[in-house]
Amino acid sequence: MGRLRYSVSMSLDGFVAGQDQSATNPLGVGGHLLHEWMRALAVWRKEAGLDGGEVNASTAVIERDDQNVGAIIMGRNMFGGGPGPWRVDPWNGWWGDNPPFHLPVFVLTHHPRGRLECEGGTTFEFVTDGITAALDRARDAANGMDVAISGGAGVAKQYLAAGLLNDLLLHLVPVFLGAGVRLFDNPALTAITLKQESTVQAPGVTHLAYSIAR
Amino acid sequence: MGRLRYSVSMSLDGFVAGQDQSATNPLGVGGHLLHEWMRALAVWRKEAGLDGGEVNASTAVIERDDQNVGAIIMGRNMFGGGPGPWRVDPWNGWWGDNPPFHLPVFVLTHHPRGRLECEGGTTFEFVTDGITAALDRARDAANGMDVAISGGAGVAKQYLAAGLLNDLLLHLVPVFLGAGVRLFDNPALTAITLKQESTVQAPGVTHLAYSIAR
Repeated sequence: MGRLRYSVSMSLDGFVAGQDQSATNPLGVGGHLLHEWMRALAVWRKEAGLDGGEVNASTAVIERDDQNVGAIIMGRNMFGGGPGPWRVDPWNGWWGDNPPFHLPVFVLTHHPRGRLECEGGTTFEFVTDGITAALDRARDAANGMDVAISGGAGVAKQYLAAGLLNDLLLHLVPVFLGAGVRLFDNPALTAITLKQESTVQAPGVTHLAYSIAR
Repeated sequence: MGRLRYSVSMSLDGFVAGQDQSATNPLGVGGHLLHEWMRALAVWRKEAGLDGGEVNASTAVIERDDQNVGAIIMGRNMFGGGPGPWRVDPWNGWWGDNPPFHLPVFVLTHHPRGRLECEGGTTFEFVTDGITAALDRARDAANGMDVAISGGAGVAKQYLAAGLLNDLLLHLVPVFLGAGVRLFDNPALTAITLKQESTVQAPGVTHLAYSIAR
């Protein structure tokens, strides 16, 4: 069975997004600082349809992180739903006609809606019966490959606290955000046993890989 | 002029001590988990008068961290003063007749007391006029060598927030404490610019070195 994985950029003071997140500033105040190391990479620019960029020690980390993923789970805000019920129907999120996932995506939400098929192989399915159900469906779709949590720290925190996450890849950025969304703020995390897997230092970031045992 | 340095073990969720710290449990609940990597080392055991222990990638990090230190600053609790005025006079802390510092130590406190000379070259001086005064006196005593902050996260946090810390060496331990004393919980830290210096992975810990610019 594939593994459930989450990769995220985190400030040295433990924030994965700045404060005052909004539809126009989804990363919150200072949150863009968490992603500068990635936006400098050729591998990132290529996916965004841009030329140029760097090849450095982060490149192999990112390439490996993209491999063997068969399905994606995301939160409702990451999809682009915003607060409240679906604002526009059909509302296709902010990803456009050809979202960059090219995989089955399972969106955790309280608001049912029908499956959405996009160009390029991305499908969105909307799961209203909780994180375990979403994981079961994503694992079925992944067909033995891994399932990645793609954004929405809240979603990742739920899977981590429930002991369902298998692999955590932290991109630790040497910056202080001072406030915002903490990845690790749950006293129940003491039930989780971590194993340090690898450490890679790269320009503007250190990649820390952990596996998780219950 | 020497640099002001602080080294500390931190859990992945950002705690440098567990909750419910007390005189009988100064590390707080679970806090001992932060130091297991160090207690396994031959270099640590030797300083503690014990035989055996491991030599691994942490050894060189610890040895380098012990070099070129000419004076130490610590908080009142680290000295062993406990809450309130000095409990016993002369109260020599919990370090015994021959403390392991062998250097001039400057203790930040609100309670004046006279200089204390111990066996083995350790002297304690008690500074009541603030962190800048303590740093000035420690720098004079260090005579061009570095000054190390030795314990008392509260003291380190004050120097960090004031922009006076030059070097931060985090020993990041793959464990969740869930609660306790956070090293980084100050919104004013956004004024601090960090530079990532080095990363060393070792058994049970990753050593992350940063320098700090204002």
